[in-house]
Amino acid sequence: MKNTFGQSVAVTLFGESHGSEIGAVLDGLAPGIRIDEDFIRHRLSLRRPFGKISTARVEPDEFRIVSGVFEGKTTGTPLCILIPNTNTRSSDYSKEIPRPGHADYTAECKYHGCQDPRGGGHFSGRLTAALVAAGAIADSVLRECGIRIGTHISRLAGILDRPFDCLDADIAALSDLVFPVLSQSASEAMKREIELAAKDGDSVGGVLETAVTGLPTGVGEPWFDTVEGILAHALFSIPAVKGVEFGAGFDFASMRGSEANDAFRMANGEVVTVTNHNGGINGGITNGMPILFRCAVKPTPSIFLQQDSVNLETRQNTALSIKGRHDPAVIHRARVVVDSVTALVLCDLLAGRFGTDFPTTAFRQIGKD
Amino acid sequence: MKNTFGQSVAVTLFGESHGSEIGAVLDGLAPGIRIDEDFIRHRLSLRRPFGKISTARVEPDEFRIVSGVFEGKTTGTPLCILIPNTNTRSSDYSKEIPRPGHADYTAECKYHGCQDPRGGGHFSGRLTAALVAAGAIADSVLRECGIRIGTHISRLAGILDRPFDCLDADIAALSDLVFPVLSQSASEAMKREIELAAKDGDSVGGVLETAVTGLPTGVGEPWFDTVEGILAHALFSIPAVKGVEFGAGFDFASMRGSEANDAFRMANGEVVTVTNHNGGINGGITNGMPILFRCAVKPTPSIFLQQDSVNLETRQNTALSIKGRHDPAVIHRARVVVDSVTALVLCDLLAGRFGTDFPTTAFRQIGKD
Amino acid sequence: MKNTFGQSVAVTLFGESHGSEIGAVLDGLAPGIRIDEDFIRHRLSLRRPFGKISTARVEPDEFRIVSGVFEGKTTGTPLCILIPNTNTRSSDYSKEIPRPGHADYTAECKYHGCQDPRGGGHFSGRLTAALVAAGAIADSVLRECGIRIGTHISRLAGILDRPFDCLDADIAALSDLVFPVLSQSASEAMKREIELAAKDGDSVGGVLETAVTGLPTGVGEPWFDTVEGILAHALFSIPAVKGVEFGAGFDFASMRGSEANDAFRMANGEVVTVTNHNGGINGGITNGMPILFRCAVKPTPSIFLQQDSVNLETRQNTALSIKGRHDPAVIHRARVVVDSVTALVLCDLLAGRFGTDFPTTAFRQIGKD
Amino acid sequence: MKNTFGQSVAVTLFGESHGSEIGAVLDGLAPGIRIDEDFIRHRLSLRRPFGKISTARVEPDEFRIVSGVFEGKTTGTPLCILIPNTNTRSSDYSKEIPRPGHADYTAECKYHGCQDPRGGGHFSGRLTAALVAAGAIADSVLRECGIRIGTHISRLAGILDRPFDCLDADIAALSDLVFPVLSQSASEAMKREIELAAKDGDSVGGVLETAVTGLPTGVGEPWFDTVEGILAHALFSIPAVKGVEFGAGFDFASMRGSEANDAFRMANGEVVTVTNHNGGINGGITNGMPILFRCAVKPTPSIFLQQDSVNLETRQNTALSIKGRHDPAVIHRARVVVDSVTALVLCDLLAGRFGTDFPTTAFRQIGKD
Repeated sequence: MKNTFGQSVAVTLFGESHGSEIGAVLDGLAPGIRIDEDFIRHRLSLRRPFGKISTARVEPDEFRIVSGVFEGKTTGTPLCILIPNTNTRSSDYSKEIPRPGHADYTAECKYHGCQDPRGGGHFSGRLTAALVAAGAIADSVLRECGIRIGTHISRLAGILDRPFDCLDADIAALSDLVFPVLSQSASEAMKREIELAAKDGDSVGGVLETAVTGLPTGVGEPWFDTVEGILAHALFSIPAVKGVEFGAGFDFASMRGSEANDAFRMANGEVVTVTNHNGGINGGITNGMPILFRCAVKPTPSIFLQQDSVNLETRQNTALSIKGRHDPAVIHRARVVVDSVTALVLCDLLAGRFGTDFPTTAFRQIGKD
Repeated sequence: MKNTFGQSVAVTLFGESHGSEIGAVLDGLAPGIRIDEDFIRHRLSLRRPFGKISTARVEPDEFRIVSGVFEGKTTGTPLCILIPNTNTRSSDYSKEIPRPGHADYTAECKYHGCQDPRGGGHFSGRLTAALVAAGAIADSVLRECGIRIGTHISRLAGILDRPFDCLDADIAALSDLVFPVLSQSASEAMKREIELAAKDGDSVGGVLETAVTGLPTGVGEPWFDTVEGILAHALFSIPAVKGVEFGAGFDFASMRGSEANDAFRMANGEVVTVTNHNGGINGGITNGMPILFRCAVKPTPSIFLQQDSVNLETRQNTALSIKGRHDPAVIHRARVVVDSVTALVLCDLLAGRFGTDFPTTAFRQIGKD
Repeated sequence: MKNTFGQSVAVTLFGESHGSEIGAVLDGLAPGIRIDEDFIRHRLSLRRPFGKISTARVEPDEFRIVSGVFEGKTTGTPLCILIPNTNTRSSDYSKEIPRPGHADYTAECKYHGCQDPRGGGHFSGRLTAALVAAGAIADSVLRECGIRIGTHISRLAGILDRPFDCLDADIAALSDLVFPVLSQSASEAMKREIELAAKDGDSVGGVLETAVTGLPTGVGEPWFDTVEGILAHALFSIPAVKGVEFGAGFDFASMRGSEANDAFRMANGEVVTVTNHNGGINGGITNGMPILFRCAVKPTPSIFLQQDSVNLETRQNTALSIKGRHDPAVIHRARVVVDSVTALVLCDLLAGRFGTDFPTTAFRQIGKD
Repeated sequence: MKNTFGQSVAVTLFGESHGSEIGAVLDGLAPGIRIDEDFIRHRLSLRRPFGKISTARVEPDEFRIVSGVFEGKTTGTPLCILIPNTNTRSSDYSKEIPRPGHADYTAECKYHGCQDPRGGGHFSGRLTAALVAAGAIADSVLRECGIRIGTHISRLAGILDRPFDCLDADIAALSDLVFPVLSQSASEAMKREIELAAKDGDSVGGVLETAVTGLPTGVGEPWFDTVEGILAHALFSIPAVKGVEFGAGFDFASMRGSEANDAFRMANGEVVTVTNHNGGINGGITNGMPILFRCAVKPTPSIFLQQDSVNLETRQNTALSIKGRHDPAVIHRARVVVDSVTALVLCDLLAGRFGTDFPTTAFRQIGKD
């Protein structure tokens, strides 16, 4: 249903990069969830540009919760968050010459020239701030249930981070890192790579890897509403995400079944798998092991190098030099967006499975017994 | 909504591997679409096991259209297709010892032991026959609009097929190949690899690559209901699919923006892109270039080698040797399932965009002008 | 989504009056619900024509459950029920001259002449047999939770049944009545009225009144997905239903607030209302009192009197005399359809509220504590 | 999906009576619709209390469109409207003693005491201001297609307005009436009745009757998504609506088929019906005649007379005297809410039928040819 996602817990996104505000409506959350505004601010800060490797446009991201919260807790009715846009320079944009790799041309095709072109309008990565604010609330709900989400840059321009090791410690460590890389040396190398690209007026892409721990078994559906399918559906909304794989993902292509299958074993009275090539999901349904997935993030399309494009008015070829303020990499900023979208999707799945009072009684009694 | 997918054109899937019938209800198709039963049979034949590289269970896949067709054409009301199961050996299955890599354990968690375990029950790849039958009808609709879909095995156990070249010719060639590989030598090498795995009682995975030509521009939504998101949502339903990437996908991780961006040019009065790293989609919306995506297919989990598992009754570790009839590879059979799911999703997107009479007047006038 | 209704528990309807089978897919039911085929047969028998007051077309309504049941209990995966059509006389129908009061003309408009016209095709009341079979299963689920549904003819051609009195006894009494009227004398008078109309080649309408007891409080949403809205949405699917009112309904128009408001009182430690003019629903949400609603049922449009119509081919006025086998009243047969639709909707609402394992643990612990 | 309604054109509602703002997100509107802020203001003014027959709380209803509009026209992306609450007196409300006829008790049951009780919180009729603002935009779209909606008070406390006569003239006349009654004498009598009730500290209910002209044929679905079902679903959201009937509605109960059936005739080359007892809908689908329906509106539950209630803290019976500012009737204010909800639903149905560019090319070419 267009700009709304979720069935039991749903998020609706609105706004444009250079409008007065962007925002989100979060509906279906259980009543009584404590809202921690500092945590929301912290999550938003992880999305903000920083240092030399980011755009010069910095937004304070002051948010305002307009509805759905009373005396510091969710009411159970729709929660609307508004985030004002303050630092905008609208003269930087026109509709005539679409920027390669951006949605300018497809927006023109779909909206017949009525779209707001300023800063990418409704397509702008700016809208992910609203997803992050909503996701921070969803994340609070999950943490009450012992569910943790963490994402790192596993690959950037040929440089690999170390793999996840002790998940709980790694997730905890990541939550405070502005540049979310587990290995200190990989982190330095990646930042250098971004600076190099910036110096060339160019940009870089990479891969984000996410782990989720603490999910109960039996969540998801066998066909269509598989956990993989629903997560991927939402994750592909994140601008620049062009691939999603679960567990071994594309590496399965080189495996044999005897390697790929995750053997079952008993451990402390629980069924576990020895390996986790399936990323915690079999037949679309959680098996109690950590969920593991990776998102391919393409290089920011805004670069300072001259590019070939067309003039949609004159229908002639032309050259385009993009001015303005842009990121040589968005992957470190996209991290908290991936976490947020994941939190929103999981709240939806859990509320569908355990009822609208999740995360209270129902979840504790059914999900954990 | 669980086992139903699609908003404007929706498919509902039902049945179990060893029940009397499996089937699908296809709702929202325009009235007046001619039903070509031979084409449906042809598509089903591409999904059937063949030769040494497939399971010994062969189903005739006689289907029966129970509703929604009158005088050889769709009525516009729900079309129900039934496919009887005939060749079943239910003694091969039990619930005590879950098969690694299968959904046995997660089915037990979700359905509390009430699931039908015979042949994997509702989780069985057998249900994809109903998707293929429904997808064949969707495909007929798309072909009337000049839209073509084709899929090949681009990679299997380290062997690469040649890339797509002339898309229309390649798609046409693929439509008659039971083992869908463009390069003859790659085809032979892949088959040998499957036979080797079979000899070892093992199985192999691979990558399927799909191209769609002829789609109009302006289809898809900027957030959540992106073309990528909706396609991926549906594709992850296909058993064994564990990754989906569009255009350059995970290869974007090693690119710079200057390489990744697809420059625009005028060609015969149309806007085209010089490269197609974005797989025909920008900002979630079609740009008129071919849609390109790849699915990672894991090795069939049913192997004949002994595996570690647990006994869910006694809660003890145990060993499992799977008997029965199994595929050393499903990737060549999964090809037509990918095509079918793609066709169903595109019909849904186009009917949402151009109205329920798509593919008649609306599409021709708006989509193509 | 067209011919599918429900979010957590969804029913998809397919088939035509003179096709091989009609049927329904019921998805989202909890696993482990015992299927009582005799009860389904009993419910179907209440929908069948009887005696002088009904059509001469009698279908045996043999049904077949194709999927979703294993060892006599629901599996939790989609349950498909098929009911064959056997007693059809297709020569009775043509597309040229639409029957007044029927959907013939609107079907022509919507489906551009591709609809199946035999017996009303997909619009036929015949399809309600599939709703009744699915509803019987939903009803079994509700009865396990102590929820009871009963419907009587409260008005027919000026004759009034006595109002509901002791609800549990009345509902129990109705469940075995083929002609569902609480007062014996009203029942006789109504049947005479139907016979009179039949003698005139005419038909009669009426009002069905439904009560639901045992629902927990707190079900429904404040806006859009109110209990009234969702029930009405589904009830208006029943052919011939043209009005739905809750509690005092249209009688509220003559009341003052001081009469209309239902005062609260404590009774045995529970909050109850002294009157129930709001039909158990305030602000769209159940208050624990019985749900009460009424459906207006229009007279069967198939009558034997000559009527004015048009010839859609020649675009000329013409006269129409309907042959065939028809009901002088459908209201007594519509009763079990109303019950069934109500049961399906309530299962959906309760599964949304209490999770997909409703009616097991979750409901007992949360709904009833 | 809770507080969101619609598939192709969807509205999401948020806010509380005494929060900072209420608002709505309207998604799926075609691009290029001119926004007439004066018209929105005019529609909001029809919802505002006036004279002696309304509450003393008057809100200026300054609205702000935050997104989805660029250079005075819709962009095609989500349009968010905010309306600040200014004139609030929150000390008037408590949670202990639920007001009879209101949602206080059911809110407590559903939200476990976390709801915002001030002014009815999210349940407040105040939120209908956002529906009216969104509906004004939907109405603009419909008027471009020649579709007109009008509603009058057809009955209030035993006083009847004259029936609709010349629909186009009546609808035009109603659009400027603050108290929407067609007969001048009935209007005076109704206002007197409201003043009498006000003097008694009491309130009155009534019936609203709506007509829609200009709809194309062939809109709606045979089962579940009937035009009646979808309209009723949305209309029951309006606080105080407890019944919805189409065409003859409950009067069908006293008719015979020969009276109830609407005979077809040719008129100026078009198929019309001689009567319109079915309210423009057969088999759930529009037949090209005006849509006619009536909503039962219960008396405002807020009255100044003392009422019986309970104390939810002490679990004791108690008496309640409501202070504050209240309406002795809301029916004249509810009129524009009914119009607005109708406009939103029709835009959704038409966009589903004719595609997302409705009301441009598609509608003109298909709907009107």
